[in-house]
Amino acid sequence: MSESPSFTALTRLLRRLPGVGPRSSQRIAYDLLMRKRELMPALAMALQAAHEHIRSCSRCNNLCEAELCAICSDTQRQRELLCVVESPVDLAAIEESGAYGGDYFVLMGHLSPLDGIGPEDLHIDRFTARLAEPGLREVIFATNSTLEGEATAQFLAGYVPAGVRSSRIARGIPMGGELEYVDRGTLGRALLGRRDLEE
Amino acid sequence: MSESPSFTALTRLLRRLPGVGPRSSQRIAYDLLMRKRELMPALAMALQAAHEHIRSCSRCNNLCEAELCAICSDTQRQRELLCVVESPVDLAAIEESGAYGGDYFVLMGHLSPLDGIGPEDLHIDRFTARLAEPGLREVIFATNSTLEGEATAQFLAGYVPAGVRSSRIARGIPMGGELEYVDRGTLGRALLGRRDLEE
Ligand SMILES: [Zn+2]
Ligand SMILES: [Zn+2]
Repeated sequence: MSESPSFTALTRLLRRLPGVGPRSSQRIAYDLLMRKRELMPALAMALQAAHEHIRSCSRCNNLCEAELCAICSDTQRQRELLCVVESPVDLAAIEESGAYGGDYFVLMGHLSPLDGIGPEDLHIDRFTARLAEPGLREVIFATNSTLEGEATAQFLAGYVPAGVRSSRIARGIPMGGELEYVDRGTLGRALLGRRDLEE
Repeated sequence: MSESPSFTALTRLLRRLPGVGPRSSQRIAYDLLMRKRELMPALAMALQAAHEHIRSCSRCNNLCEAELCAICSDTQRQRELLCVVESPVDLAAIEESGAYGGDYFVLMGHLSPLDGIGPEDLHIDRFTARLAEPGLREVIFATNSTLEGEATAQFLAGYVPAGVRSSRIARGIPMGGELEYVDRGTLGRALLGRRDLEE
């Protein structure tokens, strides 16, 4: 199929998806063409729709389809608690643990000087605006327990106003572990066992 | 993101791709939305284009964008040799081995009574039309060395006209192995060491 420009274009784009290498991009393309042709226009439309409709919450950065995400719009959440996570995947993992009922702030990444990701890339303006909202009692840093996640938590803790507690999700999660791969029970316990962030 | 219909629709479709489970469909969707938004319309267009332009060769069933595939159109190939494979992935693997210069016939599957895949699903009409072309000397069955692949080869060998040799790709490939995962050297040797199919 190397002679087909449409095939080459498709596999080259598929290869840019996470976890999809050259071999699996071919497998996916052949599977679609040979067995699941009806899936191709459906997937194309779903990609377009998601691209058009999904945006980030103006308050917490979570992905959503409205100005505010479902959590920010939910009047039952504890507004005095703010949990800082690296990505919406981590937010979803914590929600599934059932151990938390407060607000979130989604950084959409972590500090990584080597990759050129500085504080301005983590939506610091939005973060400080959220910190300035009245009634905040505690900021729980639930960034990954990687070097970058720890450095990001330490850095952002510097913005937390005096009188507001800064805490770090307990280390029940394995060193170097990424939140989304941790089982939900461990994640729930780690959240309950959080400790104050050392200055 | 469970509150976003576009997100749910996208992940549900991604999950139908081979090798993509519930967790990885979410990872792919988040990665697209957070870091590779420009990839979404591009991938949508590539899927549409491939869906529209890629068809199967009217002579050998290989996927292509014209009436005849590049191999069937190539006047330098040895028309007296016909290699029967289950899928275009296997065809590509054999081409990469560099050990073969004849024609192919792509079954687009194998016999599998349990899945309701019978002879009519393997394009038997097209296969017998190809067998009837003048000058054919040998049909090499390079179906997978799985139970279904063996049964398919045995079954199709029954259609090969008297005076035309039927051979089976040599068992240098591991039992139960699928061609596309075999290293190219082994695949090339197995092809050269092919033996006559036992009746
Ligand atoms: Zn929000
Ligand atoms: Zn062809």
